Parts: sequence; C-alpha cells; structure tokens
Amino acid sequence: MNIQTLNASSTDFDQSLADLLAWDDVEDSSVNQTVSEIIQAVRQHGDAALLSYTQEFDQWEASADNLVVEQEQLASAWDQLPDEHSKALKVAADRIRHYAEQQKAQSWDFVDEMGNTLGQKVTPLERVGVYVPGGKAAYPSSVLMNIIPAKVAGVSQIVMVTPTPKGELNALVLGAAWLAGVDKVIKVGGAQAVAALAYGTETVPRVDKIVGPGNIFVATAKKMVFGQVGIDMIAGPSEILIVCDGKTNPDWIAMDLFSQAEHDEKAQSILVSLDEGFIEEVKASIKKLLPTLERSQVIKASLEGRGGFIYAETKEQAISIANKIAPEHLELSVDNAEQWAEEIEHAGAIFIGRYTPEALGDYCAGPNHVLPTSGTARFSSPLGVYDFQKRTSMINCSKTGASALSDTASILARGEALTAHAKSAEYRKING
Amino acid sequence: MNIQTLNASSTDFDQSLADLLAWDDVEDSSVNQTVSEIIQAVRQHGDAALLSYTQEFDQWEASADNLVVEQEQLASAWDQLPDEHSKALKVAADRIRHYAEQQKAQSWDFVDEMGNTLGQKVTPLERVGVYVPGGKAAYPSSVLMNIIPAKVAGVSQIVMVTPTPKGELNALVLGAAWLAGVDKVIKVGGAQAVAALAYGTETVPRVDKIVGPGNIFVATAKKMVFGQVGIDMIAGPSEILIVCDGKTNPDWIAMDLFSQAEHDEKAQSILVSLDEGFIEEVKASIKKLLPTLERSQVIKASLEGRGGFIYAETKEQAISIANKIAPEHLELSVDNAEQWAEEIEHAGAIFIGRYTPEALGDYCAGPNHVLPTSGTARFSSPLGVYDFQKRTSMINCSKTGASALSDTASILARGEALTAHAKSAEYRKING
Repeated sequence: MNIQTLNASSTDFDQSLADLLAWDDVEDSSVNQTVSEIIQAVRQHGDAALLSYTQEFDQWEASADNLVVEQEQLASAWDQLPDEHSKALKVAADRIRHYAEQQKAQSWDFVDEMGNTLGQKVTPLERVGVYVPGGKAAYPSSVLMNIIPAKVAGVSQIVMVTPTPKGELNALVLGAAWLAGVDKVIKVGGAQAVAALAYGTETVPRVDKIVGPGNIFVATAKKMVFGQVGIDMIAGPSEILIVCDGKTNPDWIAMDLFSQAEHDEKAQSILVSLDEGFIEEVKASIKKLLPTLERSQVIKASLEGRGGFIYAETKEQAISIANKIAPEHLELSVDNAEQWAEEIEHAGAIFIGRYTPEALGDYCAGPNHVLPTSGTARFSSPLGVYDFQKRTSMINCSKTGASALSDTASILARGEALTAHAKSAEYRKING
Repeated sequence: MNIQTLNASSTDFDQSLADLLAWDDVEDSSVNQTVSEIIQAVRQHGDAALLSYTQEFDQWEASADNLVVEQEQLASAWDQLPDEHSKALKVAADRIRHYAEQQKAQSWDFVDEMGNTLGQKVTPLERVGVYVPGGKAAYPSSVLMNIIPAKVAGVSQIVMVTPTPKGELNALVLGAAWLAGVDKVIKVGGAQAVAALAYGTETVPRVDKIVGPGNIFVATAKKMVFGQVGIDMIAGPSEILIVCDGKTNPDWIAMDLFSQAEHDEKAQSILVSLDEGFIEEVKASIKKLLPTLERSQVIKASLEGRGGFIYAETKEQAISIANKIAPEHLELSVDNAEQWAEEIEHAGAIFIGRYTPEALGDYCAGPNHVLPTSGTARFSSPLGVYDFQKRTSMINCSKTGASALSDTASILARGEALTAHAKSAEYRKING
C-alpha cells in the first residue's frame, strides 16, 4: 500500500502539508437547485409535499397516519435489545450525561455601584430537531451524542427525524433514542425533513435548531435554512492526527489510524512520528492487520487517498503541525502527554496518552463525538449543552442609576447623530 | 400618521401579528453573483484584487503602502477627540468590559471513578476580523461592542476593516478602535474586505472569525465564507417591543419607539399596552414630538410601514406576545417589571422597568448591543466573550480506566459494524 510520507524538516514541507490537507467540497449547483425546490414545496404544501417526497425517495407508503413512531414502539425497541447492547448503551449514556452536566451554563447578575442590576439569563431552546441518517450509516452512538446534551440543557421537545428506506426501522437507533429521552420520532429524511423541521408542517413541529449529520442533500438544506433556525456545524470528512514518540505498540497506532479510515474513503488519518524507524514499524503493522478487517477496502482507499506519515525531528515541530492542522481528533501517544496537551491551541478533542484511543471517545468516555472538522476547530467547538442554551441580557436601571448613565448615552448618541436615542436617555435624567 | 393598531383578543390576531412581523429578506441573485466573483478574485489574486476593488468602489488611490492605518494615527485620533467624547467612550468601554468579564468561560476537568481524567479546555480564538461600516452608519459604539468582548476573551490579533469612501477616515471610529485595543486597522470594506479576512492576502491576515454589521454585499459575503471562517449572526432590521401598563409618561414611550425607528425605514417599533386609552396618549406624544427630531422622515416611514400598537387585556396575553415575537429589544415599562422578566423565555435583551430605556443599553449599560433580530433570539444570543472562545474536549484514560471502558466501546462499535474501532478499544484491555 502506498501512503504518502513527508518530512517536517524538508524545505517544501509547508506546501506538501497543505496539499495533503486540501479539501474542497465541490458545490454542486444541481444539488442546490433540487434542495431549494424541495424546501419551497414543503414550506408551501406542508405534509402533502413531505409525504410525496418520502414516498418517492424512501419507497414506502408514507401517510399522515403512519409517519410518527409511537412511544410504545420506541419502548418496545429498547426492551427487545440484546442485554449486552442495552447495558453498553446505558453505560455510554450515563457517562455522556455526566460530562454534559458540567457544561450547563447558569444565569448570573450583579449590581453596579450606581444601583443598576445587570445580568445574563440562560434558558434552554424550546424545540430541537435531531437528524439521524438511515440505512448503513445509522449510528446509535450519534443518537446519544446529539440528544443527551439537548436533554441536559432542558429542551422541552426533542424531535428526531430519520428516513426509513422501504419503511425499515433500525431497532438499535430507536432503542438509543428511547434511552436518550427523545419526545417524538418521525420517519422522514433528506432535505424534505430539514425543511419540515425549519418551517413546520401539520405533522412535524417547527423547531428552533436542527442538529445531526446527513448526506449532501441534508447538509445543503441545513445551510439554506440557517437563519430561519439555528444549525450545528456542517461537518466535513472525519480526521485523526496521531502524534507518537515511537514508544507505543505499532499495532495500536495502526488500528487507531484504521478506526478513522474505516468510516469513509474521504476520511483522513495522519501519523506524526518523532522516530523515523517507527513509521516503518507502523507500515508493517498496517500490512499485517489490514487483511483482518471487514472494511479493509474502505480503509485502503482512505489511507492511500488521504492518509499520511510525517516524520518530525522535534516536539516543537510536532506541536506546530498539530496546531496548524487543528484536527478534529488528536491522539498524543507520547510520554508526558499531559504536558504536550497544554501546548495544543486548536483541536476538537485531545486523546491524551497511549491508553486513550479515539474509539473510547467515540462511544463512551463522556465528551461528545460531534466535533469540528477540516480545521474549523480554530473557531468552533464540540457539540455541547451550550448549543442548546441561549442567553438574554438583563438590564434593570434604578432611578438614580439611569440618571447617572444618561449623560454618557446622550453624548455618544449625539456623536452618532441619533437624537431620539439621546432624548430617550435624557428623559430619565433626574431634573433633566 | 397612520400606525397599525391590533387587539390581542380579536379572533384574527394571530394572523394580523404574523403579517405585522413578516420580514423576508429577498435573496438577490445578482448580488450573489457579484459577491461570489469578488471572493474568487481576492482568493486568487490577493492584494492586487483587493486594491483594485477598493480603488473602484471607494474611489481613492489605495496601494499596499497606504492600506493600513498606522498605530500612531489611531493614537492621535484618540488624543484629538473632544474631552466630552473621550470621557463618554471611556465610561462606556469600562462598563462593557466589566460586564464581558463575567462571561469568560474557564477550563475544567474531573477524574471519574475509573481514574480517567475528562475535561474541557477553553481557549481564545487566535485572530478575529471586525467589520466596521464606513460613511453615515459608522458607529463608535459598535466598535466598542465588537472589539471589547474579543479582547476580554484573549484574542491575540484583532483586525478591523473599514471602508474609507474617497479616502476619508472617521475620527470617532478610529478613536474608539484605539481605546478598545484594536491591533490593526485596514482601510478596505465591502465583500472584498470579507474575502481578504477569510482567505488572507499579502496585507490582510487570514482570521478565524469575522464579526460586525454591513450592507447586503458584506452580509452575503459573510454567509458565503461561513465554514472557511466563523461568523457572527446575519442581522435583520433592528426591532423593539415595549410592553407598558399605561403608567409610564407617554412622551418617554414615544421617544423609546422613535429611538428604534430612527435607525432605518425597515426598523420595527411595537408597543403592547395593557391600557387602551394609553395608546391614544402615546399617539398624541408621537404627534407632538416627531417634528422636533432630525430624523423625523425616517421615523415616520418606519412607524407607518412596520410599527404597531397592540392592546392586550391581560398580563398573560402581553407575555405570550413577547415570547412569540422573541424581540431583539424588550422594554418592560410596568410595575413589578422584575416579575414580568422572569416569564420571558425569548428575547435578545430585556430592559426592565420605566428607568431602563433601550438607549442606555445601546451605549453604556454594559451588556452588548449586538443582539439577535427577527425572532432569532429563539436560538441565538447577544454577541459575547463566548463568541471569541472555543472549547476542546480533553480525554486522558488511565491504564485501568481504558481497560474498564474497552468492553462498552467494543460492543457499541461492533453494533455499528465498525470493527477497527472495536479492536482499537480492545487493544487497551488488560489481558485483552
């Protein structure tokens, strides 16, 4: 297998790294056109359009009567899960919830020296829509990761939409949704489901924010309804950057690279090694282990197309590469990994030390597995309780406090030629 | 003057209210086309394209040598401000900073019962771009409101861009930028400035997030580069909802309505009154006071086009209207306003009591005046320090902790047919 290898000390390294990372999601104008039409139709015709698209794309006899999954059906999906699965889901859910609870922001206020009370009120979003892909890419773990933080925030109604190709439901997904505390599950998907959540139909309640991953139609629809509702990030292909000092078992590192690569041909797995010989050891492990894996074809395509080995001579080089990439997942498989972690400025999640493979974080460590991709960790954060809370500024001026502030407001308002602002402030001046 | 009046108890009220609020920012495909071309040109040709657009649109001899405002020029703008202005700006800046400091999130971590350390690291964005409109709509107060929270978050480099039509600089804006602690001011504006901030040119550093208001070209450009960089909200027309029990001086209420209406013909000022007769008193005040104002034409157009009076019989009706509108600014000009405020679920900012006009909040109360418009307070928040911070999940498993988690991860991964994930977890199992 041919995986690109770079040397961080070579003169053309910056350009080679940029080429390795380059990812331009081609905008498809025919997709834009289709999605825009679907949104317009659902906005205008509600359920009628939603049902017709669902019949056409998902190929089952969707009707207003059979679109919603009854709560008893969710409960029964949960009850019928193999013990092993329900136990594992429960462990994961408890840990995700416990971590999320630390993120919950509280309201606060203070009284200034003039007697004015200033504060910030934190409230949950009222209604949230969670998109869950159907078919092959239906992941119960993602159901937990998307619903639980909303639940912890105190969202009143969590509506999950999921396509059911040929009417088939995924029992693990339903069970996970039940465990996470979903309020309503509706069997619709694609751009039509996003449109329904954004504008509301007879069956689908209009929500305030839509989260969750989906294909290009779903992502495009989310972008288009952004502003009408809130959305989470638009995710690019998943990526991992592993930094290793050469002292971890090379089989472990190979398998950690595989675990990212198996998602998808476009996924990116990169190893930065401080030991040049270790790269060869990992290559040998890859050769040995790849044939043992079910998804070896996907892994091979991903590693050859977008994978990479980088030899870095120094810790400084390695840290600088990590901060430059701002990876979604960063594994620090080195001695004194905690110290390394302190120097990382940009990453979605940091997996610290040889005993913290990404896979543990993907399922049950506690932190969310919905993370910023493609370098967007420079400015965005993992999905969290804060995505389901909003803030309102609270201003309560006392009579003397308002009077004391009125001069300042008036001067600044007149500086901006906004006289009504100035007068509105001046009216509150005592003897003004 | 003819301002719409609604009755909250009438049978068609919901529809009338929806009509009053209706606001659809028409997408202009020619604007989209122009902006898309500008972004491509700046991305490909850097300064050359940026300078050429600046010469064309702003009509001055922009060159790489005169594009950046020197720090001495900023300092001197500040020094030359009239005492009254610099004093008022300083009072405002101190209060904005003090409030913002309460918003600063801190990193945290905890150790679970298995000995794994889990946490969340909070870091500032590295570079932020602040767009400041030029010409008429250049507001020093907005400069403070956009820059200070970034500064409090600890952003390393704050780059302000502002167009200088015919090369003219606004001294109040420069002085405010100096006071707020800007790092670099560049004399470019429009879509070309947004493109330069998003992709970087020889003169303009690439930033991680772009904030600040602008015209339709700027807003469209911000939407287009979203994903490449972070952006703040895309603001619609500004709005105020005043709820009054009829016991406030009607002149005050009229002036508060004016203070929103004077921004712009599209601005929306609505009064909900619990006293039907009071609406007539406010109308009389409007008639009396309007001619005294410089911007009376704009105010008249705004109130006639988008303003409204609503008579509500009960407190419950009034609160329900406020929560339905989710206004940018909500004034509670009533007795026991604090109790009313507790029942408000959705608003950008709440101005509590008769002594808290919006104008005080616009300039110097402390909370940010950049607020969610057009009902987006349902899911978004005032601009704040949190917009300039990001979070990284930290996961540090102990040897025994990883071993304890590996079964759960392995079962869930196999449930999703992701075997490499499962094996990666299993490798960390003691005796596994």
